[in-house]
Amino acid sequence: MIVVMSQRATHEQIQDVVDRVTELGCEAHLSQGKETTIVGVIGDQRRLRESVFEAMDGVEQVVRILKPFKLAGRGFHPEDTVVSVKDVDIGGNAFVVMAGPCAVESHEQLFEAAGAVRRVGVRVLRGGVFKPRTSPYSFQGLGREGLELLQEVRDKTDMAVVTEVMAPEQVDMVAAHADILQIGTRNMQNFNLLHAVGRSGKPVLLKRGMMSTMEELLMSAEYILSHGNYRVMLCERGIRTFEPYTRNTLDISAVPVLKELTHLPVIVDPSHACGNWRWVSALSLAAVAAGADGLLIEVHPQPEMALSDGEQSLRPDRFYELMDRIKAVAAAIGRTV
Amino acid sequence: MIVVMSQRATHEQIQDVVDRVTELGCEAHLSQGKETTIVGVIGDQRRLRESVFEAMDGVEQVVRILKPFKLAGRGFHPEDTVVSVKDVDIGGNAFVVMAGPCAVESHEQLFEAAGAVRRVGVRVLRGGVFKPRTSPYSFQGLGREGLELLQEVRDKTDMAVVTEVMAPEQVDMVAAHADILQIGTRNMQNFNLLHAVGRSGKPVLLKRGMMSTMEELLMSAEYILSHGNYRVMLCERGIRTFEPYTRNTLDISAVPVLKELTHLPVIVDPSHACGNWRWVSALSLAAVAAGADGLLIEVHPQPEMALSDGEQSLRPDRFYELMDRIKAVAAAIGRTV
Amino acid sequence: MIVVMSQRATHEQIQDVVDRVTELGCEAHLSQGKETTIVGVIGDQRRLRESVFEAMDGVEQVVRILKPFKLAGRGFHPEDTVVSVKDVDIGGNAFVVMAGPCAVESHEQLFEAAGAVRRVGVRVLRGGVFKPRTSPYSFQGLGREGLELLQEVRDKTDMAVVTEVMAPEQVDMVAAHADILQIGTRNMQNFNLLHAVGRSGKPVLLKRGMMSTMEELLMSAEYILSHGNYRVMLCERGIRTFEPYTRNTLDISAVPVLKELTHLPVIVDPSHACGNWRWVSALSLAAVAAGADGLLIEVHPQPEMALSDGEQSLRPDRFYELMDRIKAVAAAIGRTV
Amino acid sequence: MIVVMSQRATHEQIQDVVDRVTELGCEAHLSQGKETTIVGVIGDQRRLRESVFEAMDGVEQVVRILKPFKLAGRGFHPEDTVVSVKDVDIGGNAFVVMAGPCAVESHEQLFEAAGAVRRVGVRVLRGGVFKPRTSPYSFQGLGREGLELLQEVRDKTDMAVVTEVMAPEQVDMVAAHADILQIGTRNMQNFNLLHAVGRSGKPVLLKRGMMSTMEELLMSAEYILSHGNYRVMLCERGIRTFEPYTRNTLDISAVPVLKELTHLPVIVDPSHACGNWRWVSALSLAAVAAGADGLLIEVHPQPEMALSDGEQSLRPDRFYELMDRIKAVAAAIGRTV
Repeated sequence: MIVVMSQRATHEQIQDVVDRVTELGCEAHLSQGKETTIVGVIGDQRRLRESVFEAMDGVEQVVRILKPFKLAGRGFHPEDTVVSVKDVDIGGNAFVVMAGPCAVESHEQLFEAAGAVRRVGVRVLRGGVFKPRTSPYSFQGLGREGLELLQEVRDKTDMAVVTEVMAPEQVDMVAAHADILQIGTRNMQNFNLLHAVGRSGKPVLLKRGMMSTMEELLMSAEYILSHGNYRVMLCERGIRTFEPYTRNTLDISAVPVLKELTHLPVIVDPSHACGNWRWVSALSLAAVAAGADGLLIEVHPQPEMALSDGEQSLRPDRFYELMDRIKAVAAAIGRTV
Repeated sequence: MIVVMSQRATHEQIQDVVDRVTELGCEAHLSQGKETTIVGVIGDQRRLRESVFEAMDGVEQVVRILKPFKLAGRGFHPEDTVVSVKDVDIGGNAFVVMAGPCAVESHEQLFEAAGAVRRVGVRVLRGGVFKPRTSPYSFQGLGREGLELLQEVRDKTDMAVVTEVMAPEQVDMVAAHADILQIGTRNMQNFNLLHAVGRSGKPVLLKRGMMSTMEELLMSAEYILSHGNYRVMLCERGIRTFEPYTRNTLDISAVPVLKELTHLPVIVDPSHACGNWRWVSALSLAAVAAGADGLLIEVHPQPEMALSDGEQSLRPDRFYELMDRIKAVAAAIGRTV
Repeated sequence: MIVVMSQRATHEQIQDVVDRVTELGCEAHLSQGKETTIVGVIGDQRRLRESVFEAMDGVEQVVRILKPFKLAGRGFHPEDTVVSVKDVDIGGNAFVVMAGPCAVESHEQLFEAAGAVRRVGVRVLRGGVFKPRTSPYSFQGLGREGLELLQEVRDKTDMAVVTEVMAPEQVDMVAAHADILQIGTRNMQNFNLLHAVGRSGKPVLLKRGMMSTMEELLMSAEYILSHGNYRVMLCERGIRTFEPYTRNTLDISAVPVLKELTHLPVIVDPSHACGNWRWVSALSLAAVAAGADGLLIEVHPQPEMALSDGEQSLRPDRFYELMDRIKAVAAAIGRTV
Repeated sequence: MIVVMSQRATHEQIQDVVDRVTELGCEAHLSQGKETTIVGVIGDQRRLRESVFEAMDGVEQVVRILKPFKLAGRGFHPEDTVVSVKDVDIGGNAFVVMAGPCAVESHEQLFEAAGAVRRVGVRVLRGGVFKPRTSPYSFQGLGREGLELLQEVRDKTDMAVVTEVMAPEQVDMVAAHADILQIGTRNMQNFNLLHAVGRSGKPVLLKRGMMSTMEELLMSAEYILSHGNYRVMLCERGIRTFEPYTRNTLDISAVPVLKELTHLPVIVDPSHACGNWRWVSALSLAAVAAGADGLLIEVHPQPEMALSDGEQSLRPDRFYELMDRIKAVAAAIGRTV
C-alpha cells in the first residue's frame, strides 16, 4: 500500500501517517520528492483498510499494490485447477460445453432438450428451477418440482446438471439434486449465499456480476475458497455498458486476464451476454479462440414457446452446426472438445 | 407492446405473430408501412414476455410500451406515500436527515455518534451491524451484538434506527430491533430477501443497485409492495460509471425522475455515492435542491479510527455546518427540516 | 510515479528499471517488501510516459502519482479564475445563467428567445449555428447566416453570445461574431480545435466529453491554457451511463471535485444532461446548491416547433419560474444571480 | 416512428399529434388500448426528428422503428463491400492483418518494423504521424516528416500504409502519402473531418468512438458514404466501461452485429482495446473466430523504447507466433489469411 501525501501536507501529518503504519504492525518507507511525499507500507496488508489512511489529514490518495485476493490467485496456486464433475473434467485440456434450456419447464421439455444436446456430446445439462426475475409477475421457476426433474435426468442419463441457487436456505436442497451450484449474476455479492455454497463443498459456477469488476469476481470466489471449497468455476456472462444493441457486452478480455490472474477454470456464457441467438455462435467461437475452458449455452427445443429467454436460445439444429464449428476452432488451438 | 417485423418478413410470419397475440388473450393492431410492418398489442401485457415474440421468425424488435411496474407507479397511487417511523414522517413536506456511523463498532462509538447527530435534530440513526464487504478479510460487522446496541439507543433515546439486513433468515431478528430495514445496493435484486422484508411489514429503505436502472429499482420495490407492505423508501446512492475520481457517480437526475414515476419517498445517500467526506456537503445540498425527501449521511466521531468507510464519514463539527446549510436550502424551496 | 514490480521479478529486472529511471533524469527510491518491490520515481515526471516502464520485463503495474495537468490546477493558481465577458463576470460570487435556443433558426425565433430570457436578467445568450448532429440527414445549423443573426443581437442588445465552433478553420470567423467559443462534447478531444481556440485568445466554454473523465477534461483545458489563453470555463453536461431513462447522467459530483482541482469556473448544462425539460428545473437547482458558477439552459419560444432538441427546451413561462427558484437557492448559499 | 401517448393524454392532445404527423407528410395509425394510445407514423421518417413529438403535450415517449442509417445498411446494399488497397482486398474471404508501430519515430524504426511484419505476409503497414494525445506534453507525432517516411515505405516495398488524419486541413496532405486514411476514436464524430475524408474518395478506416454506440458508428460512416465514397472500413477498438483492468473493453459482439447490419468490412484493433501486449494474442484469435475481416495490431521492434503505447506493442517474435495461430483459426472457420 502506498500513501500519497498532499502537496501541502505538514511534517506532522507525514509523521502521523508513519506512526499509524507502525502501530498497525507494518513498516513505513518514505520517498520525498519535490512536489510530493509518498509513504510505502511494507508488511501484510491484506487486512489493512485503505480508509484508515484516507481519513487522515494531509493524505491525498492511497494506492493498493498487493492484489486483495490470495487463495484465488496464481501466486498461491500456480497450476490450473481442474474441477471434476461426474467424469467430466473442467479446466483441463478438454473444452467443455454445457447446454440446455434457460428454465426447466416440464418433463417433456427437459428430456427433449437433454436428449438433443446429449446427441452431440454434451455431458453437462443446464436448466434453472429457481429463476431470479426482474419482475415479480414473471415466471419464477418450477422450484422443488424442477429439482426432481433434474434428478431424473441424472438418474436416467450419464449427464451432470448445473442449476442456480438463490438463497442460503436453498443450498442443501439444491445440492442434493444438482452436480454444480450456479451463483447468478445478481447474487455474485450475496455474501451469505457465497458462504453457504462454500460450506456445501459442491462444485460452484460463479457468474460475474453484470457490473462487477474482475477483481470483485475473484474476491467473491475468495469467499467460497475460504471455506476450503476449491471446486469453483468463474463465468463471464457480459457486463452492462452504454451499448443498447446487445443485452450486455461480452467482456472477452476477461478470458485471458482471468487465466493470468487465477488458477480457476473460466467459462463463457454467450447467450446472456448478447441476448439474441443470432450472435451466440460468433461469441461462442470467440470464447474458444480466446482460451476459455468451456461454454454455457442456452438450447431449447422450441425457443418461441420458452417461458424464459426464448430469444437467446438456439434451436437444436443450429446448436449442432455450432458444435461442429466449436470443435474445429478448438482443434486449431490445440484443444479437444 | 409493439412487435416490429423485419423488412423481409413474409405474410405468413406476420400472420403468425397476429395469431400468437390473439392466443395470448390480447388484440393485434396492424400498421403496414412501406418499409416495415408493426403489430400493436392491445390488452393486459404486464405478464406477457417480450421473448415470446422475439424468438419468432420475421420479428426484428419488440418494444414494450407499458411500464412494467404497477403498485409502485403514480398511475396506481397518485398521492405521495408518507412512511411514518416512530413520530417521524418521511415523504411529506418535512425533509428528513438520517445520520450515523457506517458500522456499529462499540457502545461508546455508537452512543457518541447518536448523541452528536441528535444534538442538531436528527431523529433517525443509521448504523450497520451486518456489513456486506467485497473481501472476506474485512470487518463483517458486530452482528447480533450490534443489534442489541441499536436496541439500547431506541430504548434510551427518542431516535429510530435503520440498519441493513443481508439474508432472508436475518429478517425476523433484525425486524425485532430496528425501525427501518435497509436493503443494500448489492442486494437490490436478491429476490428472496425482497420477499422476506415484504412479508415483515416493516418500513424498508431500498437502495438502488449500483448497477441497476431506475426501472429495475421500481421493479424491486414492486416485489415488496406485492406483499401489501407499502412502507418502502427508495434510496439513490450512486451508480457505477467510467469516472474513477469518485467512488460512484451520484445520479442526481434520479430524484426528479423517480418523484415523477412513483409515489414512494426518495432518499439520497451522498456518502457512498462519492466516497469522500470532502464532497458530501455539496452533494447533500444538491439532493435537497433537486427535491429529495431525505438524506442518509455517514457521521463518525473519529473517522480516522472507523472500522469501515472512514474516508467518507463527516466529523460532527462538519456535520453541524452542513445541517445549517441544509436548513437554508430546504427553506429556499419551501420545505422544513 | 511508482513502478510496482511483479512478485517474480528478478534482481536484474529491478536493476534495469532503476537504471532506466536514472537515464531519464529522475531518482529511484526502492522499497522492498516480502511480496513485492516498488520503485518510487522522484523528479519531474509530467513528460514521462508510464509505458516506458510498463513495457519492461518484470513490471507489474505503473501508478502515476502527480496529476498530469499543471496550468489548470489549483496548485499552480490557487485563486478562482474569473472570466469577464462584456460586463459579466463568470466565476466570481455572482451566479451566471446563460440561456437561449439550442439552434439559431431564424431572425424572429432568435430575437423572441433573446427578449424572453433578457426580461429576467439573462446577459449571455446561447444559440448554435454550427450543429454537430449524429445523422447527416438532420438540420446542421444556419452557419454563417446564423452568425450574422448573433452579431445583430450583440449590436442591438447588451447581451453577450456563446456559440459552438466545430473545426479549426471556423475559429476566426466565429471569434469575430461571438463572445464565447463553445467546444462541444464530441470535440473535447479534437486537439487541433483546442489549439486553435487557444491561439484565438477568446473566452472558451469547454464541454466535458460525454464519456470523458474529469482528468481528461482538465487535460483538454490544459491544451488551451498552454497557449496563454486562461479564459476557459468548464462545462459538465452529463455523461453516458447504462441508465436509459435520461439522455445522459448529470455528474453532479463533478462540481465540487472540479472546484477543488481547478481554478477555472464550472458551468452546468442540465438540458443536454437529462434530455427532457421536465427535469431541467430540479437539475438546475441542484447545480446551484452544489456550488457551480453558472448554468447553460435551453429556452425556446415554441419548443414543439424547434428544429433541434425541442423536448429539452423550456418555454419562457417555465423558465421564469425557474429563475425565481434559482435566485432563492443561490441566496440560501450566499450567492447572487 | 411510434408516438406513445401518456395515460392522461386528452383527446385533443392525441388529435394534435395526428395532425402534426399529417402536416409532416406522413400517415398516422391509431391504436387505442385501455391504458394507453399509440400513434404509428407511416412514411419516410429518416428526416423526422423525434423531438418534434417529444415536445408536444400528452406525449409519453417516442420510439424510432426504422434504422437511421441507409447507405451503410444491408437493406440498401446486401452484398459485402470489398475495399481494395493496392492489391489487397479487405472484406472478402481473405482475412487481412495490418500491423506496425503505434507511431512513426524514425527511419530506422519504421523500416525495421515494416521489414519485420512483411516477413510474415503483412501487406498493410500501420504507423501514426499525427498523434492525438490526451496531454499536450506528450509526443505529438513526426507530422509531415513522418508522412515522407511512410511514402518511402510505399515506394520501396509492396506495402500499403494506413495512418491517422486529425483535421480537415490535413486531409489532402495525408491522402497524398497514404493508402488508407484512419479516423481515430476521438474523432469519430468530428463531422467536418468526416465530410473531408468523404470528399477525398480515399479508403477510410473509421474507428469506433470509445464512447459511441454501433448505431452512431454507422451514422458516422453514413457521413462519408453520403459523399459517394464507399471505401469505408469500420474498426472496433474497445469501448469505455467500468472495468479498470484493461484499458478499454473490446466489444467482440460488435463483430457479428455489425456484419449483420452493414455491408462494410469490420476490422478489430486488439492492441488499443486491452492496452497490454500480454492479452493481444487472445483477443486477435477471438476476432478471427467471431468473423472479423481483419486486424490492426501494434508491433514494435523494441516496445520498451517506443515513444507511444509501448506496453501494448508486440515484439516481432511474439507477433510471428501469433500469425501462425491466426492462420490456424482462420483455416478452421474457412478463411485464408
